[in-house]
Amino acid sequence: MNSARFSKIYTGDLRVPMRQVRLSDGSAVTLYDTSGPYTDPSVETDVRRGLPRLRERWAGERRAAGEPVTQVACARKGLVTKEMEFVAVREGVTPEFVRQEVAAGRAIIPANVNHPESEPMIIGRNFLVKINANIGNSAVTSSIEEEVEKMAWATRWGADTIMDLSTGQDIHETREWIIRNSPVPVGTVPIYQALEKVKGRPEALSWEVYRDTLVEQCEQGVDYVTVHAGVRLAYVPLTARRKTGIVSRGGSIMAAWCLAHHRESFLYEHFDEMCELLARYDVSFSLGDGLRPGSIADANDEAQFAELRTLGELTRIARHHDVQVMIEGPGHVPMHKIKENVDLQRELCDDAPFYTLGPLVTDVAPGYDHITSGIGAAMIGWYGTAMLCYVTPKEHLGLPDKDDVKTGVITYKIAAHAADLAKGHPGAQAWDDALSNARFEFRWEDQFDLALDPDTARAFHDETMPAAPAKTAHFCSMCGPKFCSMRISHDVRRYAAEHGLAEEEALEAGLAEKAEEFTRRGASIYLPDPDAVN
Amino acid sequence: MNSARFSKIYTGDLRVPMRQVRLSDGSAVTLYDTSGPYTDPSVETDVRRGLPRLRERWAGERRAAGEPVTQVACARKGLVTKEMEFVAVREGVTPEFVRQEVAAGRAIIPANVNHPESEPMIIGRNFLVKINANIGNSAVTSSIEEEVEKMAWATRWGADTIMDLSTGQDIHETREWIIRNSPVPVGTVPIYQALEKVKGRPEALSWEVYRDTLVEQCEQGVDYVTVHAGVRLAYVPLTARRKTGIVSRGGSIMAAWCLAHHRESFLYEHFDEMCELLARYDVSFSLGDGLRPGSIADANDEAQFAELRTLGELTRIARHHDVQVMIEGPGHVPMHKIKENVDLQRELCDDAPFYTLGPLVTDVAPGYDHITSGIGAAMIGWYGTAMLCYVTPKEHLGLPDKDDVKTGVITYKIAAHAADLAKGHPGAQAWDDALSNARFEFRWEDQFDLALDPDTARAFHDETMPAAPAKTAHFCSMCGPKFCSMRISHDVRRYAAEHGLAEEEALEAGLAEKAEEFTRRGASIYLPDPDAVN
Repeated sequence: MNSARFSKIYTGDLRVPMRQVRLSDGSAVTLYDTSGPYTDPSVETDVRRGLPRLRERWAGERRAAGEPVTQVACARKGLVTKEMEFVAVREGVTPEFVRQEVAAGRAIIPANVNHPESEPMIIGRNFLVKINANIGNSAVTSSIEEEVEKMAWATRWGADTIMDLSTGQDIHETREWIIRNSPVPVGTVPIYQALEKVKGRPEALSWEVYRDTLVEQCEQGVDYVTVHAGVRLAYVPLTARRKTGIVSRGGSIMAAWCLAHHRESFLYEHFDEMCELLARYDVSFSLGDGLRPGSIADANDEAQFAELRTLGELTRIARHHDVQVMIEGPGHVPMHKIKENVDLQRELCDDAPFYTLGPLVTDVAPGYDHITSGIGAAMIGWYGTAMLCYVTPKEHLGLPDKDDVKTGVITYKIAAHAADLAKGHPGAQAWDDALSNARFEFRWEDQFDLALDPDTARAFHDETMPAAPAKTAHFCSMCGPKFCSMRISHDVRRYAAEHGLAEEEALEAGLAEKAEEFTRRGASIYLPDPDAVN
Repeated sequence: MNSARFSKIYTGDLRVPMRQVRLSDGSAVTLYDTSGPYTDPSVETDVRRGLPRLRERWAGERRAAGEPVTQVACARKGLVTKEMEFVAVREGVTPEFVRQEVAAGRAIIPANVNHPESEPMIIGRNFLVKINANIGNSAVTSSIEEEVEKMAWATRWGADTIMDLSTGQDIHETREWIIRNSPVPVGTVPIYQALEKVKGRPEALSWEVYRDTLVEQCEQGVDYVTVHAGVRLAYVPLTARRKTGIVSRGGSIMAAWCLAHHRESFLYEHFDEMCELLARYDVSFSLGDGLRPGSIADANDEAQFAELRTLGELTRIARHHDVQVMIEGPGHVPMHKIKENVDLQRELCDDAPFYTLGPLVTDVAPGYDHITSGIGAAMIGWYGTAMLCYVTPKEHLGLPDKDDVKTGVITYKIAAHAADLAKGHPGAQAWDDALSNARFEFRWEDQFDLALDPDTARAFHDETMPAAPAKTAHFCSMCGPKFCSMRISHDVRRYAAEHGLAEEEALEAGLAEKAEEFTRRGASIYLPDPDAVN
């Protein structure tokens, strides 16, 4: 990004970071910023040292005051935490509103006391829709350095949280690097590491191995953990007749365990203990949908909704322990079945924030599943989903590289922002208005800078009209210099303004006598800057 | 595409083309095919000779029988045309159903008697959702050869119609080449050429110049024409206070003309004559939305809906003349305002097919407007829009190249197919099911071949796992060979099948005694082919 036109600003006592875009008309637009210290030229970052420990003393203060450590516990006691204040500035609402939403369980602030490097953010239907980017190395490919770089890259483009889904060697070390360097909350799926510990044999898993892994991750600073505690023994056979069975890795691990032992899931049976553990660090639950549909044919089936009912039951247990909870959702769902997912989730899980993967609205476009899922994500965001887990173009086919991560993040920022607009989130439309004003007034550089991806917008314009003067031209390559529809609109507007015409008045004003003058003024003849294009 | 696994087949007496994908399990999936003779290795195409004149005698037969020439006239008289028969085979419905839909005006078959090279297709809410790709050179860039190549390229990936929006020199010649070589209907916006004839000065336009241009284009074989006859004088001032005024080129030309002359639009005033002209060739109207919103702020405003009411009035006039009509729609519309567009269009235009550009659900992502609009397109398709006009990544920034055309087409095929699924179109889900079956059974080559874009799907898989054996591997790069969730699903399914378990039975069957056996069988231990990856 062109640093001359972007700046990192900090608001208030808590120094809440924002991105400011300075426009050529002297005004500025302030945007939500997830990129952390990496985009602040005055901060030197060193991946080996980790980020500044912004929240280091905040949790200590809470503890020192003898208050319970979790955000929801504080909220219920009427206490506004520093994290809530921070979030209120970011979202443009009052700290009291944040407190109420957290207290009600409608929103969570995933912020492990052991991840003081993170900038607080909130996930809830009454706030801006958030997006998550999955990264992580697998047994097949990719290195730790690459994953840390992907994390920073994803937050630069707007990822609100990161999930480290590493499955190969070095899970612990990869996660350490990511957490120490992540300005956004980090989520994990602890069962992946637990499985590594038992050499990839699901039936060898046990509560003890899992609990130790959970402790390890909580200590390290993971902010939220996906736990597939809703995959109960009784639900596994419900998947037998599906088109694509169980497609969640965590779900299938637990299903395999349940079948192998013919026992109820140890995650389900030990859920209370897990709550006690997570509460000590203020780690949030992301209750996983291990039985989510992996194809259009399997959407909204009994296996999926049976699990969702159990997630509702677990939500109430977690809340009893003052642990923050969100609920994961599908998956592959055709458009007409999306809303039912949100409605049922709200009802069954008492309005806990919903966090969905897409959903993909068709199965037929591998290679483009950022788009098949971006459609579903925008819709489900509008219907009330609080966070959208991105899908990259490599979904179903391979591991995302940096370009794929960026494409996934931008696609999901589109979906999230479209949802904010549709929900009428206060302030959401100001961004669109600023960009559309710039477009209408041919302020090309402003239009690029306000774009979700300024680099691509600028590069695309350069392709057709590379000359520098084209960036100030009052036309574009679509119509060319001789005729420009936007130009004529300006004439209409000026004409109406000059003649003081209100809308209805204009109809009755008898424009006839003014028509000649309009033509004389050169109503539609537009003389372009001859230097603008060749 | 790999010709060994794809074949062009022809069905029935009328030899309706289809694309057949042969799968490795011996079955085959037949898909709708828009690509024309170009994908038939037995047909030699020569761009200088044009395509075979498939429909050459069909219209003659209709004329010879003394019947009126238009499809809707025939339909109303109870006559099933060859075009209707052809379409019925393509859509998997009865010819009589096609006739009824055309007679009612709910669907159109755009097929100029002078474009006999085209393969008949139908646009209507009760058929598969169609997509259009815009091509055409402009004053700034691109050549005729490029545009013809883009046309063939767009149809190869699934464009159902093409619009030639050329604005520069050689409009007539470019169009001639495109029509003679196009297997799909070709649409135009005649006012663009009329404007060229008066040297780009809107106020110099006249009905006579326009009419001559229309005759020229009808003679040449244009199948449908966008006519902005709804931009009436009285509506122009309604746009003065908009964020982005008038963004339609045709709309702004007519607005400029109306203001310059202070007269009612000559397109509106001469609409009856236009109908008589179009009827002689069976050219269809695409009634343009010259006042469509160009920004989120302007969506669903009075200017837009005033014009829509006029389009309803014009629809009834066109039908009176037995001319087929569809209605163009926006534009930029936030998600929560999309449905109103469809509902109002149906009501005001007596169920004439709706044909929308996107809509884009946010303004903030130039460079990604295939995605911002693909979201809106999928939704509006679900709500009942019959054809979706694609938007490429270059929208607002430059002219699309071949890659952009492909990206736009694939994105819109996703939107259209997602809409077909959501509408429950019979047969739509069979494609998803075939692909998901292939995915679940690790038939990688089948999965690629069934994809909307097999080349990209295959290339992405190659990136992570280039080795040929990986195409038969029973795992993918996401989880790696050691653990695979899909593999476990197979175990669950086999387990249930082997034990004859129905879903509820399974819950009560007392699985315990079988658990040991399951573990012994290696429930979750998966031994990969050691050659599959390094």
